[in-house]
Amino acid sequence: MPTRTPATGLVEIFTGDGKGKTSAALGVVLRALGHGLHIHIVYFMKGEFPYGDQKMLSELPNVTFARFGFESFVDPANVKPEEKEQARKALEAAREAMLSLKYDIVVLDEVNVAAAWNLIDVDEVVKLIGDKPASVELILTGRHADPRIIEVADLVTNMVKVKHPYDKGILSRRGIDY
Amino acid sequence: MPTRTPATGLVEIFTGDGKGKTSAALGVVLRALGHGLHIHIVYFMKGEFPYGDQKMLSELPNVTFARFGFESFVDPANVKPEEKEQARKALEAAREAMLSLKYDIVVLDEVNVAAAWNLIDVDEVVKLIGDKPASVELILTGRHADPRIIEVADLVTNMVKVKHPYDKGILSRRGIDY
Repeated sequence: MPTRTPATGLVEIFTGDGKGKTSAALGVVLRALGHGLHIHIVYFMKGEFPYGDQKMLSELPNVTFARFGFESFVDPANVKPEEKEQARKALEAAREAMLSLKYDIVVLDEVNVAAAWNLIDVDEVVKLIGDKPASVELILTGRHADPRIIEVADLVTNMVKVKHPYDKGILSRRGIDY
Repeated sequence: MPTRTPATGLVEIFTGDGKGKTSAALGVVLRALGHGLHIHIVYFMKGEFPYGDQKMLSELPNVTFARFGFESFVDPANVKPEEKEQARKALEAAREAMLSLKYDIVVLDEVNVAAAWNLIDVDEVVKLIGDKPASVELILTGRHADPRIIEVADLVTNMVKVKHPYDKGILSRRGIDY
């Protein structure tokens, strides 16, 4: 029997250069689903790539997601207007989900990168956090979390790469890494 | 249409004092399920507590789990023989799952802690990793990963606590933290 918990919603950040940021957010989602919580995930920079997590999420109850961005990688030195537009729409979607009170948890996947690369303003992310209804949990992922965002978060984990197979020339593997 | 991937199985470690280790492993599991992979999770020190992740996992196809340990927390300064026995059984179960070739991924949840607290020998964990069939991915979680285990791993992320709500006196919250 799923039960809902009147949790105090906090702001969690998974950042750093190591593997596990989006994975950790997804793990929190899986656990929360087991308690009957409702979750919305906004992918800021994932495009239409058939990520395994999205395939699985689309089969689960109580979790929805929206994808923004393009399939091609953003070049931080040469950000395109349409990429900024996508990130702005993602932030709007996240704000709307957060304020709707339909979700216990709203995940902003890769929002830290979007802010670090100036696709969106850090100030707007900080403002969104400031406008958070008390009951909602926000989870922000992505490397390069801005100190101003860390400042207003309740829980911050820095995922530090100790070893990564990329360093040995092993490429990203379907099923495991995406 | 789930597809299975002939991945080269690696050894991944999520360690450190920050939140996100078991969550990251669960996120990898969720993603892998989306690709039709088969997963077995061995909980070394979780007991019978109704964790949300286990509730959810029991409803999903292609993933099974086994729990070892007791509901009460282990006191590392005063480890009980029955706690050692449980950890030993967990390691056996993990080895059996790994060698069965029925699973693409085997998760050893909190195994690092079990080794650090001498519930099991570090050498036995290293030996298990050495006996890994090439196709199987192993994921080891828990703080205090021993340097000898890190040495034989392919991917290691150190989850560093930057901020944690426990520090502000906020307790573990159902649905979010367990």
